[in-house]
Amino acid sequence: MPEKQSCLDELIAALRCLPGVGPRSAQRMAYHLLQRDRTGAARLAGSINHALSALRHCARCNAFSEEEVCSRCANPRRDPARLCVVETPADLAVIEQTQAYNGLYYVLMGHLSPLDGIGPRELEFERLIARASDGEVREVILATNFTNEGEVTAHALATLLTARGLTVSRLSRGVPVGGELEHTGIGTIAQALKERREML
Amino acid sequence: MPEKQSCLDELIAALRCLPGVGPRSAQRMAYHLLQRDRTGAARLAGSINHALSALRHCARCNAFSEEEVCSRCANPRRDPARLCVVETPADLAVIEQTQAYNGLYYVLMGHLSPLDGIGPRELEFERLIARASDGEVREVILATNFTNEGEVTAHALATLLTARGLTVSRLSRGVPVGGELEHTGIGTIAQALKERREML
Repeated sequence: MPEKQSCLDELIAALRCLPGVGPRSAQRMAYHLLQRDRTGAARLAGSINHALSALRHCARCNAFSEEEVCSRCANPRRDPARLCVVETPADLAVIEQTQAYNGLYYVLMGHLSPLDGIGPRELEFERLIARASDGEVREVILATNFTNEGEVTAHALATLLTARGLTVSRLSRGVPVGGELEHTGIGTIAQALKERREML
Repeated sequence: MPEKQSCLDELIAALRCLPGVGPRSAQRMAYHLLQRDRTGAARLAGSINHALSALRHCARCNAFSEEEVCSRCANPRRDPARLCVVETPADLAVIEQTQAYNGLYYVLMGHLSPLDGIGPRELEFERLIARASDGEVREVILATNFTNEGEVTAHALATLLTARGLTVSRLSRGVPVGGELEHTGIGTIAQALKERREML
């Protein structure tokens, strides 16, 4: 015997836009916010609105930024000779978290996907080529995903960039760190055999 | 080499107030909202703010309500002879979802906890007793949790309410529906033996 839809039901429905949140989780989250953490709820709403209005894409690399040029691109301590190309800002964040890379980035905001009508023009390849041809970049590291689309994108970019005289490299493929062969996909093992490296 | 804290980092931090959301989930959610569902993000922020400002506690039962008296308490099709007492609005929602109860509710907004200084006065027991003594209520169903605090609360309320001539019942305890004894706690099985019911 349902009573009329309330703003509580609306909050539960709205929470379901979050990845991995189904109906029970959304309900648990809504009640948690209203019963136990109203301060956190207000902070969350405010931070969402702030991020939506204040964030734009960096003019140099497309990462999310509050300024015209992001603090990463503007940081003189980063190495301008290396440019790491990723598909999304989330991928950039993951590479940053390795703390193993001090160069600059370029975010494609997608990948080649002919079936969806996403080609070199939609991804603005010319803009990336211009960025990589600034005279400071010497190596372009292609860090697109190892999906079909990511691989196609990497190879297309490699062709264009090597033609400009740039060194182009790609993240290595293989067995993950800590991985056991028994639990690794056959395709990955086959590729790891093919791309084996001499031990020195 | 961390750049300065941004409103993106603030959004990720704010998302961690949600139950079950750790640092990786919060990051995944933030990027999902900004890259793939800005509309959903705006809707979420709006619904949080709306719920925080519009929701109050029903004057009759304490459940979340936009009106002084909630639509459930005001619904003439519900059975005023039965009053189900729960600890929180979330518990009320779960019982409603059984679709097996058509009476009215009362939300305690907590349970007895002497160590935390929460006694009958803090829980406003007198208000519940007055509510149950409206002349229409005939049975009070105690649906507090089966934790120590919930049990203590139920027994304290039972004493007070039976003294007013009301019928007081408690949800049954036992093996969950679909449960296998092998995977049921020993304490629960012991209780289920003790509270066994004759088959008719």
